[in-house]
Amino acid sequence: MTLAVMPASAQFSKPDDAIKYRQSALYVMQQNFSRVAAMASGKIPFDAKVAAESAAVAEYVAKLPWAGFLDGTDKGRENRAKAEIWSDRAKFNEYADKLQAELAKFSAAAKTGSLDNIKPTIRSVGNTCKSCHDAFRKE
Amino acid sequence: MTLAVMPASAQFSKPDDAIKYRQSALYVMQQNFSRVAAMASGKIPFDAKVAAESAAVAEYVAKLPWAGFLDGTDKGRENRAKAEIWSDRAKFNEYADKLQAELAKFSAAAKTGSLDNIKPTIRSVGNTCKSCHDAFRKE
Repeated sequence: MTLAVMPASAQFSKPDDAIKYRQSALYVMQQNFSRVAAMASGKIPFDAKVAAESAAVAEYVAKLPWAGFLDGTDKGRENRAKAEIWSDRAKFNEYADKLQAELAKFSAAAKTGSLDNIKPTIRSVGNTCKSCHDAFRKE
Repeated sequence: MTLAVMPASAQFSKPDDAIKYRQSALYVMQQNFSRVAAMASGKIPFDAKVAAESAAVAEYVAKLPWAGFLDGTDKGRENRAKAEIWSDRAKFNEYADKLQAELAKFSAAAKTGSLDNIKPTIRSVGNTCKSCHDAFRKE
């Protein structure tokens, strides 16, 4: 889902708001994903209910950051977006779609309550994060 | 909804993560609410589809910030939480519940596609934000 009807630029009062919005949404997503990843790696105890809830939040919130990658928002509030996001937008959108698809699988696996089902989906999500960061995020 | 099973402190790696999490979730919520409020006040054109989507996001994300108000997280990363959040937690929780209830009404109104239905719910949400900020947020 993207907010496709209204011009994207009208959705934020100023460019810095768009940057902060995408950063905030990505952070909420990452925290929920990482909580379950920490369970999968044994860093914190596995709690099936918390894992399912966290994964569902990560899946939902993953719809949101993309609206914040407006034209012209590589500059402004401190951020690590590479210019390639805008010069190769098709590829960036492909990663964004891939992430949402992988998080949907992750969330579905978490709903089963089985850590064995969750583990492979965590690797897939993690790989998707990394591929996009390697291509589109500054060090 | 709160992540009630696992001890809340285990849900974040460190206190600053909890602070950043609640700030991020509140920001995503506020941006979506404010977009519709700007439509209601005529600052940006009314777009029924965007309004309904934005309101639904605000309603959903309003479930999230509260997990980040862990004991001991009034200090740390820069934030404006007053100590009263923890000394008068029952009152704070009441506001948090009230906000979620008002945002549910706001989202339901936005789904009707009528700005006349949306406007009074915006005032109710805005008043709920303000009451809580007056009591629990530093200037």
